[in-house]
Amino acid sequence: MSAGAIFLFELLGTATLTLLGCGVVANVTLRDTLGNSGGWLLVNFGWGFAVFAGASIAAPAGAHINPAVTFGLAVNGQLDWSLVPVYLSAQLVGGALGAAVCWAAYKLQFDSHDDPANTLGIFATGPTVRNAPWNLVTEIIGTFVLVFWILLSPGASSGPDGIPEFGNAALGYAAVAFIVIGIGSSLGGPTGYAINPARDLGPRIAYALLPIKGKGGADWAYSWVPILGPIIGGSAAGALALAMPTG
Amino acid sequence: MSAGAIFLFELLGTATLTLLGCGVVANVTLRDTLGNSGGWLLVNFGWGFAVFAGASIAAPAGAHINPAVTFGLAVNGQLDWSLVPVYLSAQLVGGALGAAVCWAAYKLQFDSHDDPANTLGIFATGPTVRNAPWNLVTEIIGTFVLVFWILLSPGASSGPDGIPEFGNAALGYAAVAFIVIGIGSSLGGPTGYAINPARDLGPRIAYALLPIKGKGGADWAYSWVPILGPIIGGSAAGALALAMPTG
Amino acid sequence: MSAGAIFLFELLGTATLTLLGCGVVANVTLRDTLGNSGGWLLVNFGWGFAVFAGASIAAPAGAHINPAVTFGLAVNGQLDWSLVPVYLSAQLVGGALGAAVCWAAYKLQFDSHDDPANTLGIFATGPTVRNAPWNLVTEIIGTFVLVFWILLSPGASSGPDGIPEFGNAALGYAAVAFIVIGIGSSLGGPTGYAINPARDLGPRIAYALLPIKGKGGADWAYSWVPILGPIIGGSAAGALALAMPTG
Amino acid sequence: MSAGAIFLFELLGTATLTLLGCGVVANVTLRDTLGNSGGWLLVNFGWGFAVFAGASIAAPAGAHINPAVTFGLAVNGQLDWSLVPVYLSAQLVGGALGAAVCWAAYKLQFDSHDDPANTLGIFATGPTVRNAPWNLVTEIIGTFVLVFWILLSPGASSGPDGIPEFGNAALGYAAVAFIVIGIGSSLGGPTGYAINPARDLGPRIAYALLPIKGKGGADWAYSWVPILGPIIGGSAAGALALAMPTG
Repeated sequence: MSAGAIFLFELLGTATLTLLGCGVVANVTLRDTLGNSGGWLLVNFGWGFAVFAGASIAAPAGAHINPAVTFGLAVNGQLDWSLVPVYLSAQLVGGALGAAVCWAAYKLQFDSHDDPANTLGIFATGPTVRNAPWNLVTEIIGTFVLVFWILLSPGASSGPDGIPEFGNAALGYAAVAFIVIGIGSSLGGPTGYAINPARDLGPRIAYALLPIKGKGGADWAYSWVPILGPIIGGSAAGALALAMPTG
Repeated sequence: MSAGAIFLFELLGTATLTLLGCGVVANVTLRDTLGNSGGWLLVNFGWGFAVFAGASIAAPAGAHINPAVTFGLAVNGQLDWSLVPVYLSAQLVGGALGAAVCWAAYKLQFDSHDDPANTLGIFATGPTVRNAPWNLVTEIIGTFVLVFWILLSPGASSGPDGIPEFGNAALGYAAVAFIVIGIGSSLGGPTGYAINPARDLGPRIAYALLPIKGKGGADWAYSWVPILGPIIGGSAAGALALAMPTG
Repeated sequence: MSAGAIFLFELLGTATLTLLGCGVVANVTLRDTLGNSGGWLLVNFGWGFAVFAGASIAAPAGAHINPAVTFGLAVNGQLDWSLVPVYLSAQLVGGALGAAVCWAAYKLQFDSHDDPANTLGIFATGPTVRNAPWNLVTEIIGTFVLVFWILLSPGASSGPDGIPEFGNAALGYAAVAFIVIGIGSSLGGPTGYAINPARDLGPRIAYALLPIKGKGGADWAYSWVPILGPIIGGSAAGALALAMPTG
Repeated sequence: MSAGAIFLFELLGTATLTLLGCGVVANVTLRDTLGNSGGWLLVNFGWGFAVFAGASIAAPAGAHINPAVTFGLAVNGQLDWSLVPVYLSAQLVGGALGAAVCWAAYKLQFDSHDDPANTLGIFATGPTVRNAPWNLVTEIIGTFVLVFWILLSPGASSGPDGIPEFGNAALGYAAVAFIVIGIGSSLGGPTGYAINPARDLGPRIAYALLPIKGKGGADWAYSWVPILGPIIGGSAAGALALAMPTG
């Protein structure tokens, strides 16, 4: 598969991820919605099936839709480092694009929301207790579980053209969705489980650029945590997976 | 498969869809039910597994049970346009029939409901903030995700007799159910996610015709939005899927 | 498989069904539990995965665990009528046994419950609005969907020895669980979705016999509805499935 | 597979189980989290997908991640007794390790929790009504269902090297996750469903050792119940499964 096609599938998959993922938070957060105050399990299922939808669409490119997965696969030796920039750029653009489409879907609700300065959480993650080192630890742990599971799980293997494939097992991408629902339920409490730099940075950029009525700041001071944490966690998983015994 | 058999399977599948789908909203909305005020995630699972049940039953006909899927497949070249009227008429009749059966299942609860004029939402969708252009945008986006996912997802392919098949992958129609749960969780907040003209128009007609105690109007002024939006979204998905690179 | 082995597997499968199914209602109903007031979706998942567990265990016997399924298969011609009494007796004994074990699991909570006369609902279904004909309609509709889906769904077919098999498709009994979650979410509001005579009569007998502290009456006046309704619904599904076109 | 490799995979799988499982209880219990008061179904899904994640990772070793499963398989004749100590020690160390990592992920929330003496429930189970014999009954019943289901379920079989394999069926470990969600929903109300000695004892030891701010006692007086009950239940399931007719 050409680098251009990889770029296109990854972009569309990551856009689907953030469209649906930011969407469920909008549904729970904004006042004039049918899912207002729908609870944490609703958020978890929304993000989980957002991963399912996005990964299915990005399947021809290997369905990373997450720089932490890309780094994990590269460190693990399943992805040529020369392709990493293709994946990362597609994920970042896709992540921002999906968030912009989410804003369009909820345009009327953004306009009528009674606390418009507090809408950043629909786009980007933030900690309930702000403390960069420990917030980083939480993001590293959650991302490590995700990427380590992907690398060890049956069905994850290197496909044609050096592009890793995932989801050959019968459950396909539903398996990843279940893992993401599990990580969100279990480890999402402190920081909102970015566990994916593109899912956080892309929508944060969209928030900064879009004409969202009454919006507040984009909290750039925190933005490096959900970038660095997942990259560390994913890379560590890639390295540890290499050290596991086989056979 | 004959056009008559297609008509029958699509009718029964779409009737199952609206029987279960309208049923979960009745369960959450009406006063004398065990699921009263059960929350948005319950509604999402109810509609999601309604799709699972209906699609399984309509499987021999290709399991569209949604005019947006029919249009998407026709635009994509997977369905002969001459069969489109067969699908659409079966879906519309089935959608109305299922809603009528749902009314029978909840007959006592409709009779004892304390706000009977407010029961339209059990049958047809409506916006939380009324603004036709933006409501249309929301329906277009949600339906685009659904149909684009179906067209790109592994297992969607053209079967014998020019009838498209779907669900050959191991998850079968559960995969579509997960996508619909995801779209409902994430993009259902503003308009109630019709994302299917037959799911909205069929039950709306049933509402207008059935002797529902104390019922209000059928809101025909809005009814074109959940028809036009999904047809635009599904057709756009069919067109874009044609343009995706292969191999 | 011998009639004795069928009896054993069906008994254990149905006992697992009512152990877990009555269990989730006990968890939601009784005061001193961790799941108290856990909501309708929790009840739906509890019963759905109870079906999953019970059907898996009864798989060697064909996994009916429900007289409505047995009648539907017999009417459909997939089961010899001479085996019907074997299935029905195993299901009834198993249904009562599972409920008794459920009582043991929640013994302390039954003893400390503050409204002990109101514990029948943990064992048997009851209507929110009492009206036998319409309650019957609701049970017929719900059971028809279940059995019609089973008969038409890919994977349902006649196995060796005339014993019908189900669950050959990749999802296996999880598919039935999803359907039952869907029926409960959507059609369970008026009567508590027995959709299975053994699930209702077996635990009702257990309730009448067990030394449950402060218990009330077993409401025998209603008990025929969740028996007759599911048998009519299942048999009608068996007959209609015979009339569906093939190929 | 060498005993050392079994130890490693089982340790990592059980650590993943308690990391995610204790995590969801932390999310629901601690004040400064996004999932605070998220409800019992959230807890059930968190533990269920924790099993899914942990079993996937421990798959090369047979994915016991639970001494009750190990005993059940040994009693059933599918596991050489000489390997039992390898499994048990790995599970215990892994269980404690995962709980310690969970504490790190929620460090800030433990520090700011307003009732720190009441955090034992995040790590170990406890009864809502304390009565050792009946609490034991509840744990025996829940574990029996789990292990009996595993032993009878399609896909459970003895693999190469005498190491039992599980999860060959298409659903893989998602099937076990569904069963655990079902058991938690249905039988978790009285004691918090340990149904796994390593899941309870490992985190309890971690609780006793970790510098958790303001922590209370580890309730060692109860700790034997969630050890003995699951071992009895699992062993009984192993014995009964041997007696089931085949073919």
